[in-house]
Amino acid sequence: MGSAIDSLRENLGAISDLDRARGLMAWDERTQMPPGGAEPRADGLATLARIHHERLTADELGSQLDAAAAEIDGMPYESMEASLVRVTRREWEKARRVPADLRADITRTTSVAERAWVTAREESDFKAFLPHLQRVLKLSRQYVECFAPYDHVYDPLLDDFEPGMTTATLVPLLAELRDGLGPILERVAQAPQLDDSPLRGSFDVPAQRALALALVEGLPLNEGEWRLDDTVHPFASAIAPSDIRITTRYDEDYLGTSLYSVLHEAGHGMYENGMPAELRRTPLQGGASLGFHESQSRLWENWVGRGRPYLRWALPMLQEHFGASLDGVDAEALYRAANRVEPSLIRVEADELTYNLHIALRFELEVEIFEDRLDLADLPEAWNERMERYLGVKVPDDAHGVLQDVHWGAGAFGYFPTYSLGNVIAGQLWAAAVEALPDLEEGFERGELQPLNTWLRESLYRYGSCFEPLELIERVVGGPLDVGPLVAHLDAKFGELYGR
Amino acid sequence: MGSAIDSLRENLGAISDLDRARGLMAWDERTQMPPGGAEPRADGLATLARIHHERLTADELGSQLDAAAAEIDGMPYESMEASLVRVTRREWEKARRVPADLRADITRTTSVAERAWVTAREESDFKAFLPHLQRVLKLSRQYVECFAPYDHVYDPLLDDFEPGMTTATLVPLLAELRDGLGPILERVAQAPQLDDSPLRGSFDVPAQRALALALVEGLPLNEGEWRLDDTVHPFASAIAPSDIRITTRYDEDYLGTSLYSVLHEAGHGMYENGMPAELRRTPLQGGASLGFHESQSRLWENWVGRGRPYLRWALPMLQEHFGASLDGVDAEALYRAANRVEPSLIRVEADELTYNLHIALRFELEVEIFEDRLDLADLPEAWNERMERYLGVKVPDDAHGVLQDVHWGAGAFGYFPTYSLGNVIAGQLWAAAVEALPDLEEGFERGELQPLNTWLRESLYRYGSCFEPLELIERVVGGPLDVGPLVAHLDAKFGELYGR
Repeated sequence: MGSAIDSLRENLGAISDLDRARGLMAWDERTQMPPGGAEPRADGLATLARIHHERLTADELGSQLDAAAAEIDGMPYESMEASLVRVTRREWEKARRVPADLRADITRTTSVAERAWVTAREESDFKAFLPHLQRVLKLSRQYVECFAPYDHVYDPLLDDFEPGMTTATLVPLLAELRDGLGPILERVAQAPQLDDSPLRGSFDVPAQRALALALVEGLPLNEGEWRLDDTVHPFASAIAPSDIRITTRYDEDYLGTSLYSVLHEAGHGMYENGMPAELRRTPLQGGASLGFHESQSRLWENWVGRGRPYLRWALPMLQEHFGASLDGVDAEALYRAANRVEPSLIRVEADELTYNLHIALRFELEVEIFEDRLDLADLPEAWNERMERYLGVKVPDDAHGVLQDVHWGAGAFGYFPTYSLGNVIAGQLWAAAVEALPDLEEGFERGELQPLNTWLRESLYRYGSCFEPLELIERVVGGPLDVGPLVAHLDAKFGELYGR
Repeated sequence: MGSAIDSLRENLGAISDLDRARGLMAWDERTQMPPGGAEPRADGLATLARIHHERLTADELGSQLDAAAAEIDGMPYESMEASLVRVTRREWEKARRVPADLRADITRTTSVAERAWVTAREESDFKAFLPHLQRVLKLSRQYVECFAPYDHVYDPLLDDFEPGMTTATLVPLLAELRDGLGPILERVAQAPQLDDSPLRGSFDVPAQRALALALVEGLPLNEGEWRLDDTVHPFASAIAPSDIRITTRYDEDYLGTSLYSVLHEAGHGMYENGMPAELRRTPLQGGASLGFHESQSRLWENWVGRGRPYLRWALPMLQEHFGASLDGVDAEALYRAANRVEPSLIRVEADELTYNLHIALRFELEVEIFEDRLDLADLPEAWNERMERYLGVKVPDDAHGVLQDVHWGAGAFGYFPTYSLGNVIAGQLWAAAVEALPDLEEGFERGELQPLNTWLRESLYRYGSCFEPLELIERVVGGPLDVGPLVAHLDAKFGELYGR
């Protein structure tokens, strides 16, 4: 009765359930919970995280892995069973390397630092934040040492978000991207600016909500397997592959905020919604990495949602909900409004082109910090200098500069580069999809988005997280990571929009 | 470092968190979840229930209880610490008496029986349901035997919902109630019927939703500690004492459905919302029993919500939302509409007076079944005979008779009497509250509901579930369970409304 692999799957099912329960609690906290629930929710999340961690690091799981490995000996690397043992063992070994005390210390310290960051940003006071950042960095370095020996001190940080990714791969890749964007941005800066007034004005929130719902209904998410809610910082969450929670926020003065956050988050949602049934309730269920996840949000937001064909299809829906503001706007005007480039101070408001320069800056600073080439006290100066060099903008204060993101206070070093990696991968996937389906974009004009989803399911989603990102990109597009398609896409698009 | 009682509390905090996480998952399932989430949600709920049960029955908890008991030796029975050890040990011992195999068997069998019940009710086919009911009963009897020796075979079932309650107490009590209601109902049946047309008509659901929200805002729930949602079968859930989720449903033809389900569920919610801080994240947090919980829902629904003073205050709000339908209706007409008595077939639609006769019937049949005086095959006949005797109505088919409730298929024998117990306790509490606060009802006319809530917090809520129901009623009203106040309330109310 019951093979070793079945026992393993049963235990992993319970571990997955604990993780999904936490996911629901976090979604609820950010979309539904009355304010009074905050403190008990923090207790509840901590308890579930602890129980989840206990089970993930238990000796029992190690024995189950050994037994399952013996049982499936000889099965191909690609098989679900071999992948399950391989990926789970990797997670189990990683989780066991970090002492419980260090984990608790990191949780406490980042929690304090995040609160300190809120105040420091409000007051644009980097000095007040510096000691917190120093404590977080010290613990991050201790965390890194748990994974010694390593090739590069930044590798273990990257590995948490991009399994198997190395600094040696990423540094030249993102430098090449940065250098490729420079000339495009220079030409844009010298050209007459595009008019984004079609997306600006006064947009009633209930009507925006109805529009957002209609847009998601038009996307190839399975019927009855998603919902859409309001939140402050949009996110998507898969409570299960068949239970996708998309969230967005509405800006009364700018329609682009909800329009593109909905497409972005729905992109994440479609990835999870496309997981094959056999991976459900296992660690193989879910996106392969943050970078691959971001490739899906960006693909749907930028390549689809900011493309001419989709906007031609969407325009009548926009007009249906906002007749008065959008009467007389044609698809070309909408396309230009959705693609205006404007170097700016704040990453989360950046356009498709300059976004990657915000990331290049952060990634380079992180690597320099961990390589001991940059002292935290000198961070604002380095930030401001690079903002001017890459984006041509002057940073007026730290609130609009080095203090704008929560990531470092939260200890999430190694996270930023996954945003650009997502864009790089999206570029490669788009090129492959268009090659496989030459009529793809033509269908978008009629709202036919299913063929792209089907191609993604068959080419990418089917693998879940069976493979590491560097293996996976080879399997999907037949070559290594390559910034070429992304740079070519941006060059063609903005060359045409702004002239050369 | 760390006393035994602190270690116990920490473990109980985690156990409580697991329980509350399940509560959130269940609330989400019934109010928010897209249909696709059903199957993974069932997995998740089962996993959390299993982990919760493992921890509740663990040897570790037993050792912690021993250590804590030794540490607090000599502390008074009433103290939080002594209550914590006493109540937890009781739960721990009960949970350990039931073999895991039997629990699993009950879960599986009732799950199948509940599905069979849905079909059987649709087709009004008791015979099809009978074999399922027989299997459930057999397992319930096995469950009872886990608690041998007992005074009465029905006692262990009661004990799950009313700790310490006995059949010997309840049988004469509910018979006295039944016999007390007979003459009141007889007089009502001979009097001219009241007009409930003010609550009937066509009521727009969004306007009903706005009204329901306004009504809950007028109740003494702490601000920022609750929310109100739509559902199919209304319920209230405390995700935490400071995070109360009330639900209701809206009937387009009858305003009374949402009006009174909202007050009922908010009554449950106010009980949980009033838990003292020192009981939080312990097994002492929460209502003392189902009967005490129901006393709160009924108190707010019937004594407050169906009383003249509250309805005088509420009428302008109803008119604000439903001007056209309620123009010209005065408070007296609304009061009569809200208190129309009509013997009927379906328990959940029953009025304040006849409701308890539906319960008497079910309770008596349950006791007879467990005493081997009634065979399950003869249940429809016994049901129909008693419906006619107690309520004077003829049951046309089993769908409107013995098949109307899910409880028996779900194995919830011992649950029904807690509904009437709630009414009995509410009657006693109301009498005590009015004695303590003579101006209570006068304030209701101005929407001043806080004094009743304050009295309940100080007299009842402060105890959480430190004491068993039979102890608790003594502490709160200074006497034993007594149907007198409930019967006197109903006699006075309906005597005045329908004449004598």
